[in-house]
Amino acid sequence: MSNPSPILPAPAATPFAHRHIGVTTTADQDSMLKAIGYASLDELIAAAVPESIRTRLALALPEARTEAEVAAELRALADRNVVRTSMIGLGYYDTLTPAVIRRNVLENPAWYTAYTPYQPEISQGRLEALLNFQTVVEDLTGLPTAGASLLDESTAAAEAMALAHRTAPAARKGADVFVLDAETFPQTVDVVRTRAQALGLRVLVADLSQGLPSVDGDPFGVLIQYPGASGAIGDPRTVIEQAHAAGALVAVAADLLALTLLTSPGELGADIAVGTSQRFGVPLGFGGPHAGYMSIRSGLERQLPGRLVGVSLDADGHPAYRLALQTREQHIRREKATSNICTAQVLLAVMAAMYAVYHGPSGLRSIAAGVHGHAVRLAADLRSSGHTVLTEAFFDTVTVSVPGRAAEIVAEADRRAVNLRLVDADTVGIACDEATTTAIVDEVLAAFAGTDAGTSNAPYVPEAPVEPAIPVGLRRTSDYLTHPVFNTHHSETSMLRYLRRLADSDYALDRGMIPLGSCTMKLNATTEMEPVTNPGFANIHPFAPEGQFDGYAKLIQDLQDWLTEITGYDAVSLQPNAGAQGEFAGLLAISNYHRSRGDGHRTICLIPASAHGTNAASAVLAGMKVVVVATSGDEGEVDLDDLKAKITKHAADLAAIMVTYPSTHGVFEDHIGEVCALVHEAGGQVYVDGANLNAMVGLAKPGRFGADVSHLNLHKTFCIPHGGGGPGIGPVAVRQHLAPFLPNHPLQSSAGPDTGSGAIAAAPWGSASILPITWAYIRLMGPDGLVQATCTAILSANYIAARLTEHFPVLYTGARGLVAHECILDLRQITKDSGVTVDDVAKRLIDYGFHAPTMSFPVAGTLMVEPTESEDLAEIDRFIDAMIAIRAEIDEVAAGRWPVADNPLRNAPHTAASIAGEWRHPYTRAEAVYPRGVDPRAKYWSPVRRIDGAYGDRNLVCSCPPIEEFAEPVS
Amino acid sequence: MSNPSPILPAPAATPFAHRHIGVTTTADQDSMLKAIGYASLDELIAAAVPESIRTRLALALPEARTEAEVAAELRALADRNVVRTSMIGLGYYDTLTPAVIRRNVLENPAWYTAYTPYQPEISQGRLEALLNFQTVVEDLTGLPTAGASLLDESTAAAEAMALAHRTAPAARKGADVFVLDAETFPQTVDVVRTRAQALGLRVLVADLSQGLPSVDGDPFGVLIQYPGASGAIGDPRTVIEQAHAAGALVAVAADLLALTLLTSPGELGADIAVGTSQRFGVPLGFGGPHAGYMSIRSGLERQLPGRLVGVSLDADGHPAYRLALQTREQHIRREKATSNICTAQVLLAVMAAMYAVYHGPSGLRSIAAGVHGHAVRLAADLRSSGHTVLTEAFFDTVTVSVPGRAAEIVAEADRRAVNLRLVDADTVGIACDEATTTAIVDEVLAAFAGTDAGTSNAPYVPEAPVEPAIPVGLRRTSDYLTHPVFNTHHSETSMLRYLRRLADSDYALDRGMIPLGSCTMKLNATTEMEPVTNPGFANIHPFAPEGQFDGYAKLIQDLQDWLTEITGYDAVSLQPNAGAQGEFAGLLAISNYHRSRGDGHRTICLIPASAHGTNAASAVLAGMKVVVVATSGDEGEVDLDDLKAKITKHAADLAAIMVTYPSTHGVFEDHIGEVCALVHEAGGQVYVDGANLNAMVGLAKPGRFGADVSHLNLHKTFCIPHGGGGPGIGPVAVRQHLAPFLPNHPLQSSAGPDTGSGAIAAAPWGSASILPITWAYIRLMGPDGLVQATCTAILSANYIAARLTEHFPVLYTGARGLVAHECILDLRQITKDSGVTVDDVAKRLIDYGFHAPTMSFPVAGTLMVEPTESEDLAEIDRFIDAMIAIRAEIDEVAAGRWPVADNPLRNAPHTAASIAGEWRHPYTRAEAVYPRGVDPRAKYWSPVRRIDGAYGDRNLVCSCPPIEEFAEPVS
Repeated sequence: MSNPSPILPAPAATPFAHRHIGVTTTADQDSMLKAIGYASLDELIAAAVPESIRTRLALALPEARTEAEVAAELRALADRNVVRTSMIGLGYYDTLTPAVIRRNVLENPAWYTAYTPYQPEISQGRLEALLNFQTVVEDLTGLPTAGASLLDESTAAAEAMALAHRTAPAARKGADVFVLDAETFPQTVDVVRTRAQALGLRVLVADLSQGLPSVDGDPFGVLIQYPGASGAIGDPRTVIEQAHAAGALVAVAADLLALTLLTSPGELGADIAVGTSQRFGVPLGFGGPHAGYMSIRSGLERQLPGRLVGVSLDADGHPAYRLALQTREQHIRREKATSNICTAQVLLAVMAAMYAVYHGPSGLRSIAAGVHGHAVRLAADLRSSGHTVLTEAFFDTVTVSVPGRAAEIVAEADRRAVNLRLVDADTVGIACDEATTTAIVDEVLAAFAGTDAGTSNAPYVPEAPVEPAIPVGLRRTSDYLTHPVFNTHHSETSMLRYLRRLADSDYALDRGMIPLGSCTMKLNATTEMEPVTNPGFANIHPFAPEGQFDGYAKLIQDLQDWLTEITGYDAVSLQPNAGAQGEFAGLLAISNYHRSRGDGHRTICLIPASAHGTNAASAVLAGMKVVVVATSGDEGEVDLDDLKAKITKHAADLAAIMVTYPSTHGVFEDHIGEVCALVHEAGGQVYVDGANLNAMVGLAKPGRFGADVSHLNLHKTFCIPHGGGGPGIGPVAVRQHLAPFLPNHPLQSSAGPDTGSGAIAAAPWGSASILPITWAYIRLMGPDGLVQATCTAILSANYIAARLTEHFPVLYTGARGLVAHECILDLRQITKDSGVTVDDVAKRLIDYGFHAPTMSFPVAGTLMVEPTESEDLAEIDRFIDAMIAIRAEIDEVAAGRWPVADNPLRNAPHTAASIAGEWRHPYTRAEAVYPRGVDPRAKYWSPVRRIDGAYGDRNLVCSCPPIEEFAEPVS
Repeated sequence: MSNPSPILPAPAATPFAHRHIGVTTTADQDSMLKAIGYASLDELIAAAVPESIRTRLALALPEARTEAEVAAELRALADRNVVRTSMIGLGYYDTLTPAVIRRNVLENPAWYTAYTPYQPEISQGRLEALLNFQTVVEDLTGLPTAGASLLDESTAAAEAMALAHRTAPAARKGADVFVLDAETFPQTVDVVRTRAQALGLRVLVADLSQGLPSVDGDPFGVLIQYPGASGAIGDPRTVIEQAHAAGALVAVAADLLALTLLTSPGELGADIAVGTSQRFGVPLGFGGPHAGYMSIRSGLERQLPGRLVGVSLDADGHPAYRLALQTREQHIRREKATSNICTAQVLLAVMAAMYAVYHGPSGLRSIAAGVHGHAVRLAADLRSSGHTVLTEAFFDTVTVSVPGRAAEIVAEADRRAVNLRLVDADTVGIACDEATTTAIVDEVLAAFAGTDAGTSNAPYVPEAPVEPAIPVGLRRTSDYLTHPVFNTHHSETSMLRYLRRLADSDYALDRGMIPLGSCTMKLNATTEMEPVTNPGFANIHPFAPEGQFDGYAKLIQDLQDWLTEITGYDAVSLQPNAGAQGEFAGLLAISNYHRSRGDGHRTICLIPASAHGTNAASAVLAGMKVVVVATSGDEGEVDLDDLKAKITKHAADLAAIMVTYPSTHGVFEDHIGEVCALVHEAGGQVYVDGANLNAMVGLAKPGRFGADVSHLNLHKTFCIPHGGGGPGIGPVAVRQHLAPFLPNHPLQSSAGPDTGSGAIAAAPWGSASILPITWAYIRLMGPDGLVQATCTAILSANYIAARLTEHFPVLYTGARGLVAHECILDLRQITKDSGVTVDDVAKRLIDYGFHAPTMSFPVAGTLMVEPTESEDLAEIDRFIDAMIAIRAEIDEVAAGRWPVADNPLRNAPHTAASIAGEWRHPYTRAEAVYPRGVDPRAKYWSPVRRIDGAYGDRNLVCSCPPIEEFAEPVS
C-alpha cells in the first residue's frame, strides 16, 4: 500500500462478475495464457473461435447492476405479484413447507449445487432421499416400483401413454387410441394430445363414470384422474377391468395426499400411477418446479421412463444406493430409449420426501383429514344455503352449480383475497388444502352468499360429527410409510440432523470443483437464489388470473428479450421444463412448420454419431426418423462427405439436422456454416443443441450463423443449479418462421401463440419460480460480464488441456490446436497399457477430493473436463495436480509395481472405514486416503466404496431397505 | 391403520411443541418413567419440584399458534417497522451483507447452533474464523493482540476504562478520573458513566482537540473517539503523549472502515483500541447483536477482557486453535477476573471477519474510499450551496450548522425516506456508508435545499478530482490484511467453499446432542430464526425516530409481558445483551435501591461456593464485596448454618445474596424459601441467577417464591442460539420496588425508567434483532407447550441420571433422590482408581460422536449433563450407551489391560489421519475411531488431536499464522 491517499472519485464496489468468475486477476490470467502459448485473452479467443461465426457487436443488454440493486429489483418484481389464497386446484395447492426443510434443503447449497448422482459413491445422501421419495410414491399408490421423479403430472401422463403404447397387448395388435377420463386436468389433456399427435396416436376424451365407452379404434391405454378435476371420486375398478379385458393398460393420475385416505391405484388394479408431489411441501411457484411421479406394477420396471434409484452393494459388500437400470435411459439407448427424459426434479422430490419423513404416516393422514374436513363442511354449508353441489363423493375439491353467477362469485372471492376456479359461466370449483382454515372457508361461503364472513382462524370443529364424503368402498384400509425413516424424524432436531447427515454424505459444488464436461457446473450465486423463496414468487398459482402476476410477466418478457438477444433468434418459449422438453418443442416446431407447408413427409432427422443421446430420443418422440451422420478427423467434426451422402439420400424427406455447437467433442468446428447451408439447400431445418451455448455467449449467436432453432439449458449456461439432478429449464428459441409453432397453453393464452404446438409441460411457463435465477444472472453480469465469463471458460479449458495433454492426450482440438470450453482426455491407450480404466480414474479422483469429469461421453474410454469460468486458478491447479499424480499412480501399475487388480485406483474410492481394519494392499493406508495434495483437515470422505451397479440391477430393490442391512460392524 | 374412515372433525396439524420437544410419544415417556421408577410424568414432577415453590395456576400466555401463523404474525410486525436509508451514524451504519455470508453463516445452523469453543478440537472452524476476526482488528488498529469480540462498542469502552484502571501507573497512585473525548458517542458516555459510578470512579467529558485538559483529580485513562461523533478527525497524538506522561492509558474508539484510510491507533501510540465491527456486513438490527472489539498493545495480554483465540499444538504437534489465557476469565478467576464477560458475539464476529475475507484489503479500501467520496461531495455541495459544514477533516460523517432549521431539514429528509441525525436545533449530522449512492446524496442535498432531487443511482463520479478530507498527516501508509486468507476467497465459489470447510470442522447441534449442563443446548427452530433476516427487523437503526419501529415496540412489549408472567416478577428490561450484563444490571438495581433508601453502605454480596464464576465477577463490577457461603450435604445445598453465620456477621452491610435455582448442582433445594426469608430479614435482597430457569418455566416463579431480581438467558431457556459463543441476551427481571432502577438509555426514552441506572449496553433494547426468536418460541409453544418442555427436560435428566448412576455416580440429588434438569456425574473416584480423567472422557466422547458435557463445573472432577427437552429418546440412549461403553474402556485401564498413558481415552480424540499412519497402540485402529455404536457412515471426524493449551499460552500467537505451518504430510 504505497499510495498514502485514498483514490477519489469513489471506485465502484466489486462487480458481480468478479464474484462469479474465478480468474479475474491479471497475474492469474497471464500465467494461464503463457501455459497455452498466447499473449492475450483476445488473441486466444480469436484463435479458438472461428471468425466466420464471431459477432462483433456488443450484446444489447442492460449494463451490469450490483447485487444490492438486483436484489431490490427482484423484491420489487415479487411485490408486483399478488399472493392470494389459492383454491383453484387442478393439481396445484397451497402447502405449508416445513421451515426446517426450506432452510436446510431448498436454501442449502449442499443440496442445490449437487449434480445428478451418476457418481453414486459421493451421492449417497440424495440417493437415500430419492429412495424415500420412491417409497412414498410406492406406498401411497400401492404399486411396487416408482421412479425418482418426472417433470410434472402432465408429462408423466404423456409418459404413461407412451409406456402403455410400448407394452400393452392391444398396442401390439395395432391399437392406437388412448382414452382420457373427462375428469382429467385440462393441461394434462393438452400435453397428452401434443405428445400423441407427434407419435401418430389418437386421444379420446370420454366420460368414464359409466365404464369404458366403445371406441372408434382400439384403445391401448386409459388414464383416469383420481379424484377428478371436478373433485369427484368415482370407482375406477370397472374401467380398469374393462381396459384390461381389451388388452389396454390403465394409468391412474392420483393425488398423493388423497391417497392417504383413498384406496390406492395398485389395490384398484391399475398398471401405472402418475401425478405430482407438489402439495408435499413444495411451493406453488407459478407452476413449478415440482416433482411429478410415476409408479408401475411389477413387470414394467424396464419400461419406466426417467431415473430409478435402487439398492446395490459396494466393494465391501455393504448396501449402497445408485441409479438402477440405466440401460433404459436415453443417454445409453439413444433413439431406442423408453423416453427422452434426462432430468428429474431431484431437489423437489427430496423436499416432498422429507415432508413425508417429517410428518410420517399419521401426520399425513391428519393433514388429509383436515383438508377433507374443510371440504365436507364447505359442501354441507353450501348445500344448506341452497346451492347445488355437483360433487357427491370428493376429497378436497367441490364443484358448485351457480347458473349464470360463476363469474360474480369468483370476483367476490377475489375481493376477499381468495382465488376460486371459474369452471364455466355456471360453475365454480373450490379446492381445499393444507393451508385452508375455517376463516378461509368462511370467506368462500361469504363470497357465495355475498355477506361478510367471520374471522375465525381456528381449525374447523363441527358441532356434530360429519360423515366423510369418501365412499366406504374406496376408503383406504392398507398401511403406508411403515419404514422407520417415516416414523423417526418427527422432531425438528431429529429432522435437522437427518438432513445434515445426508448432505454430508454428498459432494457438491460447495466442496470443490465438479469438472463435468457438457454439464457446466458453475456458480449458483446466493443473490440469484434468494428470490426463489420470496413468497411473491413462491406462492402464485400457475392458473392465477391476469393481473395477479405482473411481476412474473415482466420478468418473463425481460428474459425472452435477453435470451433472443444472446442467441440471435427471434422468439423464445420458457415453457419446457427440461432440456429434453426444449428439444421436443423445437423439433415439434420444425415438424409443424413442414406440415404447415404441406411437407408433412419430411421426417428424417440427421444426427451426428457424437450427439447427446437425448437428441435421438427427442427426435423419435417428435415423430421423426433418426439417421446417423459419421464424425471424423482431428476435430471429431461432422464428416462432410457422409453428411452430403445422407442429405442426397434423404433430400425429399429431410426434416432437420441436429448438431451441437461447439461440438460435443469440445471443439469449435470451422465448417458449421457449411453444414447449415447444405441442410437448408435440401429443404431441411437446422437444430443447434444449446448444451454448449456457454462457450458462445457474447461471441457468437446460433440464430445468426445459420441455425433455425435451439434449446438452451438455463441450469447450465444460465446458473440455475442442478439441484442434485433437477430442476432444469430448457427454453426453446427459434427464428421467426418457426415462432408460430412454439408451445402454448390451454389455461393461459399469453403463454404462447394461438397457432402453437400445444402444451408440452403442465404449467404455462414451466418452472417459473426459478426463472429469477437466470434473470438475476444476466442482470448482474451485464453484457461485458457475460462475454468475460465465456472467454474465461475457454481460457480455463485450454489451460487444462495444455497442462494435461502430456499426461493424458487431449483427443480433439480445433484447427489451431485449441479446444472450446471443455476438453476430452483420451485414456484408451493408457488403459490398454496399464489396465487402469476411466472408471478407476474417476473413482480415484474422489480420494483426491474431486467429482469425476464426464465419463465415456461422447467417446468411450475418455474423460471430458469442463472447468467453467467460476473456478479459480488455485482449484484448477489442484485438479491438474491431482490428475498428474493419478497418472503417476497409473504408471506404477503399468510398470507392474502394483497389480492391476489391487492398486489405489482399482480400489478407489477408499472409505475411512477401509483403513481402520486390516490392511493387505501393496500400498499404504496413507497412500490410499491422503494422496499427494490432499489436506487431511479438509478431506471429503466417501461413505461407501465402489458400487457394483450390475448386482443391483440383477437384484432390484427400489424402496427403503430394512435398516438392519446397514449394520456394519468394523472388525 | 385399522380405522378405515378418516377422523372428522379435522385433527389439528402437528403442534409446534411436538417439533420442539424430542420425547412426545407415550411409549417413549413410559419407558423413561419406568427407568426412573415413576408411574406418570405428573408424579415425577411432583416429587422433583418442591411443593413449596410450585405454581398451580396455568401460565397466562396466549395459546399456542402454528408455525404458519407465527411466521405470518412476525412478517406483519416486521412490516410495521419502517425501513429507511439510515444516515444517523453514531456507530451504526447501513452495510451490504454479502449474500453468500448471510445464507451460509447467519442462516446456517452449522454456524448458529454451535456452542462456545471450549472443546477446541471440535471447534476449529469457528476458532479459525475468530482468529481471522482478531487479525482484522489487529491489522486495522495497528495493535498486536485483539480479543475474539466484545458485546458492543460502548461496553468495550467501559472495559477499556476498567483495564486502564487495573494497569495504569497513575491508577496505582490513586488516580480515579477517566477522561472521555467530548466527541464520544453519547451511548458510550452513558455506559461508561454507569460502569464508573458502580466502581466509584469519576468520568470527565472534555474537549480534547487542544490536548488533555487539566483535571480535578488525576486521570488514569483517556478515551478518544476516532473519528468523532460529529465526524471530525483530530490528531490524537498530542493527547496520547500527554496522557502517557501522566501515567494514564489511552484507548481509541476507532471505526474499522475508516482505519483502512486512517493512521491506526497503534501507530498513533494508543494502548487500547475499541469499537464495533457492525459495518463489516452485520445488519443494523435495531441495535444488535454486533461484535464489539478490543485490541491492546504488547504487555497487556493478560488484562484483556473476554475471549482470546490463539494458536497452539495438538498431540501430533500440528498447529491447532483454542481459547488462550483462559485463566483471565471469570469462569476461572471469579471475583478476581478481568471482567464479568463470558459471552462474546461470535456469530457476528464471524460475519465481520468473513466480510473482510471476501473483500480483502483492496476491496475494503475501495469501499472506504467510496464512502469517503460521497461524504466529500456532500460537504462540497453543501458548502457551495451556502451551508456551514462544521467538520473540516472527516471520513464518512459531516455535521452541518443550520441555525434553527435542523428539525425541518431532518423532517424533509424523512419525507425522502432518509434518516439524518438531529444533533440539536441548529445542527444536523449525516453519515455516509457502503449503501450510500449518488441518488441518496442527492436526496440529502434536496432536503437541505428543499427542492426535488435527481434520480441517479450511480456511484459518485465528480467532474474534477476532489481532494480527500483526511488530513495528510493521518492518511494511512501501512499495510493490512496481508495474510493469504484475506487475499484468496474473493470469488463467491471460493468463499462458499471456505465457509463450508470451516463449518465441516465443527460439531454443532445439527450433528448431535450437546449435553452441556447449565448451557441448555436446545432446538433453535427455523421458524424462530427466519425473521432475523427479514429486512423489516434487520435494517432498522437503533436511534431511529419514534414511529419507525412500531413493530419492534409491540414485540418488545409482548416479550416484557410474557417474561414477567413466566418469572413472576413485575418488570423486565431487555437491554442487557448478555447474561453477565443482566447480572450487572440486576445488582446495580439492588445497589441503587439501597442507595435510594440511604443504605449505600450495604455492599456485601453473599455467593455460594458453587455459583457461576460470573456471579462473583459481576458483583465486583457492581461495586460489591463478595462473601462466599459454603455448600454442603447430599443436595450440595447452601449450608444454612454458614449462611446464618455470614448474615449475622454482615447484617448491617448486607446488600444481597446471589443464588442459582435450581442450584448449579442440578437440584431443586427444598429450603430456598428459608434462604430468601433469612436474607430479607437482614435487609438484603435476593438475586436468583436465572441460568436454570428452564427447569421452572410453568412450574415455579422466582418472583413469587421470594426473589427480588433475576436475569434470564434468552439464549438458553428461550431458544436464541448460542451462535458458537454468542450472541446472548440477558434480560433482567425485578419486583416492583426495583423497577425504578432498571437500565435506561440516553437516546431512546422509552427504553427504561427516567430514574434508571443508566445504559448498560450501547443499544436501547440491546440485541433487538434476535428478540423475534424468543417471541416466536413463546408464541409457538403456548402455556401448555412451555410446561411440557420443562417437564420433559426434568424427565430426560432424571432418565440419564437413573441409567448412568451405576456407571458414574450422580453426585447430588434432591430430597427424593431426583435431579432437576441436569445431573452431575462424579468421576473423582474413577479417576483415582484408573487414572482416567474428566478430560479423557470428554475427549473420548468426541470419538463417539458427541460434544462433551460441562467439565468440572461446579465441582472439579465431574461432568454435568443436561439433555434438554429437545433431544429424543434415541439420541439420549445413544449418549447413555456411549457413556457406558466409555466406562467399560475405563475399566480396561483400571484393570491394567491398557496403560494409563496409552489407551483410547487418553489418546482421544482420534483423527482419521491418526489411523492412516503407523499404529503402535495396544488397541486397534477400529477401536480408536469406531467404538461401539458409531456408524461409520455418519462419523464426525475431529480435524485435530488433543490440543495442548498450556503450550499456546506460553507461546502466544493470536493472529493468523503462516499457512506453511499447516503443511502436514502424512507419513
